[in-house]
Amino acid sequence: MLIKPASTDYPLHPLLQARWSPRAFVPTLIAAEQILSMLEAARWAASAGNGQPWSFLVVPRDDEAMFARLFGCLAEGNQVWAQHVPLLLLTVAELQREPGKPNPYALYDLGQAVANLTIQATALGLSVHQMAGFNQEQARSEFAIPEAYAPVTVVAIGLQGEPAALPEPLREREEAERTRKPLRSFVFGSVWGQPTTLLADASQAA
Amino acid sequence: MLIKPASTDYPLHPLLQARWSPRAFVPTLIAAEQILSMLEAARWAASAGNGQPWSFLVVPRDDEAMFARLFGCLAEGNQVWAQHVPLLLLTVAELQREPGKPNPYALYDLGQAVANLTIQATALGLSVHQMAGFNQEQARSEFAIPEAYAPVTVVAIGLQGEPAALPEPLREREEAERTRKPLRSFVFGSVWGQPTTLLADASQAA
Repeated sequence: MLIKPASTDYPLHPLLQARWSPRAFVPTLIAAEQILSMLEAARWAASAGNGQPWSFLVVPRDDEAMFARLFGCLAEGNQVWAQHVPLLLLTVAELQREPGKPNPYALYDLGQAVANLTIQATALGLSVHQMAGFNQEQARSEFAIPEAYAPVTVVAIGLQGEPAALPEPLREREEAERTRKPLRSFVFGSVWGQPTTLLADASQAA
Repeated sequence: MLIKPASTDYPLHPLLQARWSPRAFVPTLIAAEQILSMLEAARWAASAGNGQPWSFLVVPRDDEAMFARLFGCLAEGNQVWAQHVPLLLLTVAELQREPGKPNPYALYDLGQAVANLTIQATALGLSVHQMAGFNQEQARSEFAIPEAYAPVTVVAIGLQGEPAALPEPLREREEAERTRKPLRSFVFGSVWGQPTTLLADASQAA
């Protein structure tokens, strides 16, 4: 199994440092109690006014008909690797607090719930790869999702596989270094675009 | 310190179970290295196409002028308790991938980054309380945030304080039980609105 801890500038909790989004999965099914613990992690996320504007469609690989319906919504580039994944989740945001009253925090809160789910997955030894590349309207139609709700991501979850099982260029991408913008490019102080003095102090101390 | 672990139906990692959003904080300043570790946690979050559409304004309480400017944007109900918080962050989403090309995942990805930041805070023994209740346009104006970006939340971070320090009715809310919708109300199987059979199986097994 390929381990790619984040190359951090400041210390991270091991679960946060270990998490990344592989494409190589083994098809071994995930136990029901692990799936339910991941969803429980999503359940206890923070949300604006405790609105909990999230829903999940749970699609284990052994539910072949349902798996085929969700898999069929994925972009081709994702189907290449996602065909081996033992569990797909369709994440859905509730766009209204009540009829006619939009919830501007629906996507933000759903993101928090999925991040928590991902941490729980990591703690269980599972890997998670989220996809935006799928046909949202096809997913809405396949699963009769009402207009007040929006399909947002498809989440692949399973035990990580070997990069060698992936075709090129995915194998090369799997083994590439993980990268992020430096903190100074997005962590500002009193002036937008200017790094916080905390970073200046830290770099002087280093 | 009031401990309110989530009353879970399925086991959670201790960091996820312990996290909640108190209103009682002690004003003791947070060390720079802890602030930077929390931001590093946000930095390594997953995002669509690794777009990282997030920025943060860091406002420690000892930067009195900046603290007053952000504090002044908060809703009155939040000012009551947030006046004692040692650190506020303004979280900002980048709404476009490039000029004229909206990023529909900006809020979702920012939510993931803040959830990761919150887990790191919890690991450091700190508490986090996110606020949607503030004047976004006032914050944009105070900090000259460009139109292509949106202020989304103000995040209060610090050591938890004693509920007794809060005025009513906040003290009562602080001590109230934490609640969430049951999984069966938002975790579905092949039919929207019908709980996944995993939940039926689990409840038969219990």
